Amino acid sequence: MPPAPNELDALRVVLVAARNPLNIGAAARAMSNFGFRHLRVVNPYEAAFREARSAVGASELLANAEEFKTVAEAVADCTLVVGTTAVRHRELQHPLRRLEYGTRLIRKRLSSDRVALLFGSEKFGLSNAALSHCHWLIRIPTCEANISMNLGQAVAVCLYELIRDAKATRQLEKEKRPTAEELERITAMLLEAMRASGYLDRRPIADVEDRIRRLVHRLKLPARDAVVWFGILRQIVWKLRSGKAAPD
Amino acid sequence: MPPAPNELDALRVVLVAARNPLNIGAAARAMSNFGFRHLRVVNPYEAAFREARSAVGASELLANAEEFKTVAEAVADCTLVVGTTAVRHRELQHPLRRLEYGTRLIRKRLSSDRVALLFGSEKFGLSNAALSHCHWLIRIPTCEANISMNLGQAVAVCLYELIRDAKATRQLEKEKRPTAEELERITAMLLEAMRASGYLDRRPIADVEDRIRRLVHRLKLPARDAVVWFGILRQIVWKLRSGKAAPD
Repeated sequence: MPPAPNELDALRVVLVAARNPLNIGAAARAMSNFGFRHLRVVNPYEAAFREARSAVGASELLANAEEFKTVAEAVADCTLVVGTTAVRHRELQHPLRRLEYGTRLIRKRLSSDRVALLFGSEKFGLSNAALSHCHWLIRIPTCEANISMNLGQAVAVCLYELIRDAKATRQLEKEKRPTAEELERITAMLLEAMRASGYLDRRPIADVEDRIRRLVHRLKLPARDAVVWFGILRQIVWKLRSGKAAPD
Repeated sequence: MPPAPNELDALRVVLVAARNPLNIGAAARAMSNFGFRHLRVVNPYEAAFREARSAVGASELLANAEEFKTVAEAVADCTLVVGTTAVRHRELQHPLRRLEYGTRLIRKRLSSDRVALLFGSEKFGLSNAALSHCHWLIRIPTCEANISMNLGQAVAVCLYELIRDAKATRQLEKEKRPTAEELERITAMLLEAMRASGYLDRRPIADVEDRIRRLVHRLKLPARDAVVWFGILRQIVWKLRSGKAAPD
């Protein structure tokens, strides 16, 4: 089940030493897309943060972003602090979890407590000092050939995974289908067109009605198209019966 | 199971009328992060495409991007064409599937055929003409309050969902734990420190050994920290036994 709105409100997205105002804006936009509200920035490049906040269309979310001098202050009210990293091979001092699994643990905690999710600077990621505040780390399952993601895109992917609904993978198609009666009318009209055009004289078919009915059923017509197809066929039959040659 | 590399190679990411070189570059970067290789652009704003390709650090993927005049040409060799949309309420002419479900269908098809995944322009999304080439549409499950995603972030989220490994949600923690013997040594040394410091004289505990053993087990110490904790406790015990006052 996707998290409830109050659970989303329990997440603190924390950008540590972000440099690029476009990325701060992009992080805020992804938060807004996925229903998260609380952005915190630690020691941003002041000009970048100012520019992001004053950008045209900057959101209320960005205006309400809280600024902190240290990671310790930014995560003080959280019972779980999770860092993000692209790194895999260097001696990490923390348990490293894939995003798919890490977000499950975060979602559980969000039902009762505040959780901080930390993103490092575009160039260097999270410093060792910032990492030391984390209980564990998540990594997005990127390719070995290019593990390092753009900051705004990394935030978007992590937040998407948090709100993703596992049940929706089995979502049934809700498209409306025509009734059997509508399909029967189309089948009949198609048969009529086949007869009137001489198709069936040249290529006689055994059990022709059954076969053409199955042919029509295999089309998987959307409900709203049934009437259109019926109309096209009826017009064709009318023209065929009229005995006049069609214009070129 | 995540798709095999040759299945990723069967996807064509198609940007239709993209305007912003940063977004074209961001789309290419996300593709590279998640192991996709084939980018196609339809009728891009020429200056934007040129700028994206010539940007510092522009990837081989971007250099190899194919350019087409029409959507029809860009999807001609694909047996499944899927559009992306933020729209939900307007009269859509197509079945609309949530990302979680749509990507399952795309993954199935990628095992045998080429699939095109279309993204529209930043401002207007896919035009009705472009949509008419699509078999169906997917939407990213964004909030009603802000459904429209940044193009680069939308590409990242869609591609992530394609390579996401459902089994990884059950990934077991691989962190190494100390042996029972190591925990027993720590327990013994902690008891020693409690006795030597006078703690147990002031606060006598029934079944003290069992209780302290459980206290240590509840710590969930990582294996590599066991020796550090043992060393700290041993030093403390040594100092306590030395009878000399510690310096301030």
